[in-house]
Amino acid sequence: MDQNLNFKIDNLQYCNWSEEIFKINRDAGLDAVHVTIAYHEDFDELQKNISNWNQYFDQFSNLIFHGKTFKDIEKAKEENKTAIFFGFQNCSPIEDDIYLVEEVHKLGAVFMQLTYNNQSLLATGCYEKNDNGVTRMGKEVIREMNRVGVIVDMSHSAEKSTFDAINLSEKPIAITHANPAFWHAVRRNKSSELLKELGASGGMLGLSLYPHHLLEGTNCTLDSFCSMVAQTAEIMGVTQVGIGSDLCLNQPDSVVEWMRNGTWTKTKDYGEGSASNAAFPDQPSWFQDARGFVNLEKGLKLVGFDDKEIKLILGNNWFNFYRDYIN
Amino acid sequence: MDQNLNFKIDNLQYCNWSEEIFKINRDAGLDAVHVTIAYHEDFDELQKNISNWNQYFDQFSNLIFHGKTFKDIEKAKEENKTAIFFGFQNCSPIEDDIYLVEEVHKLGAVFMQLTYNNQSLLATGCYEKNDNGVTRMGKEVIREMNRVGVIVDMSHSAEKSTFDAINLSEKPIAITHANPAFWHAVRRNKSSELLKELGASGGMLGLSLYPHHLLEGTNCTLDSFCSMVAQTAEIMGVTQVGIGSDLCLNQPDSVVEWMRNGTWTKTKDYGEGSASNAAFPDQPSWFQDARGFVNLEKGLKLVGFDDKEIKLILGNNWFNFYRDYIN
Repeated sequence: MDQNLNFKIDNLQYCNWSEEIFKINRDAGLDAVHVTIAYHEDFDELQKNISNWNQYFDQFSNLIFHGKTFKDIEKAKEENKTAIFFGFQNCSPIEDDIYLVEEVHKLGAVFMQLTYNNQSLLATGCYEKNDNGVTRMGKEVIREMNRVGVIVDMSHSAEKSTFDAINLSEKPIAITHANPAFWHAVRRNKSSELLKELGASGGMLGLSLYPHHLLEGTNCTLDSFCSMVAQTAEIMGVTQVGIGSDLCLNQPDSVVEWMRNGTWTKTKDYGEGSASNAAFPDQPSWFQDARGFVNLEKGLKLVGFDDKEIKLILGNNWFNFYRDYIN
Repeated sequence: MDQNLNFKIDNLQYCNWSEEIFKINRDAGLDAVHVTIAYHEDFDELQKNISNWNQYFDQFSNLIFHGKTFKDIEKAKEENKTAIFFGFQNCSPIEDDIYLVEEVHKLGAVFMQLTYNNQSLLATGCYEKNDNGVTRMGKEVIREMNRVGVIVDMSHSAEKSTFDAINLSEKPIAITHANPAFWHAVRRNKSSELLKELGASGGMLGLSLYPHHLLEGTNCTLDSFCSMVAQTAEIMGVTQVGIGSDLCLNQPDSVVEWMRNGTWTKTKDYGEGSASNAAFPDQPSWFQDARGFVNLEKGLKLVGFDDKEIKLILGNNWFNFYRDYIN
């Protein structure tokens, strides 16, 4: 491995995008960000979101550009910009059409979750009561994603479905934004057995800074988070963990309501929140935005990681994953 | 119950519609037919199929009209026409939008299967390996179907999902076209435990004449079929069984390939058939088309049903179900 690698990558953000946020990500030194461009959107609705991104790329070309392969991360570093990689938190953009996998890849999608909380046509989400694993269509779509080069993301999926995806996918999969359940046992966080198998298969976990995924939520301490990273690296291997902050900066609370409810229910669903705590939670003081990467660097050092390991966790591991599978 | 009821209803056909077929259905004395107007179509694609039906209603107004409630079955009998009721074999027309349930009902849909063979957003199909039952969205959609008046149809669903639907639905559900597995054990046919619960809940089974659902397929005998009806009536109650022939007259084999594969797989799926037996199967000699109802009448008499029971099975049971739940 190249000893000089020093990339910073946040492998999941869904902010209310603006020049301010692109500048924050530059200030944080982020060479690449994987951004969510679909939660519930179908193929037609996706085009509107891509059109919005094309306007951002045009308007803020001094800060960002559309990343398509790992080479764009190297280019971003050289040009002091942030490469923006597209991903979906649901399979809604391919609708019920396996032929759309290739089309969304042409449009730049490099990550796609098979499910977002609920059952999809492909697999089961983490909020369903039962999990029947990857479906008939799911098996076909994973093969097609492998063929065209879209990474399987199981962040919001249920456990059996995730084991199935690891086993069915010829290429390693990713959990771009979640934490281990041993630290904070909520539906979105993952069991140690699953993380062990993910790591052994060459897959990546992007550790989340979203308060509902953190022990003590907004009040989570940097030390607690970094100690959890150390334990997770023990389970998965230090080369298999990165950051997927799940930052949703400047989003109005109507957006989290839409993320949770889409159009699937007439009864309000609160997802990770509750009726009395329905809004976006506040970020912890040490990770208000991506500039918190510098705090992570300090915190990881304090829990015993060496410089090389810290670089792996804060970006080089994701870079290596992109180099091997998004190329 | 009105002793003079004498309706003939075929509660499932998916023919390549033409004047010839509408005439056959009239010759058979059918007062009502539930026709499939969607397998894989989304909401937009559905509009085209409805437009085609509007043309049929216009062009063949001497033979058919669009049925919306049970009263249209009475009207059809008076006018010597066949009332055509719309249904979907999949939930694809509502996409991922619970608000479309009310819209499809406005367009005339009175039956909707929650699944067609595969996993859907609502429930599990009978060709999936595992069945996790009705999903979170499925529960919401069943409630909405109950509210607006669309009957839950589980013909192509897996067993746990079907038990769930029976229990979750406030109104009885239907299995519009399937046979009992005790007679012919294929994935599309239903267990006796399930049929017993369906009958006890006030639900209806439409017995199928589609050769893949018949013992000995095309060579099934009328006596074997009618003996099966007698056994099924023992299990479910004679008031809970009707006919849902699943006739696919004049359809080219490309249609059965599309029914099975839609756009969910790039690997050809043969469903109930096989690579060497991929085409639409031939109908048995005694049920080439709906004029076979007269043979059913004779056959049911020979296995011991009385006239009143035969009328129940060949149409009055479905009429009563429509009167109670499609009104």
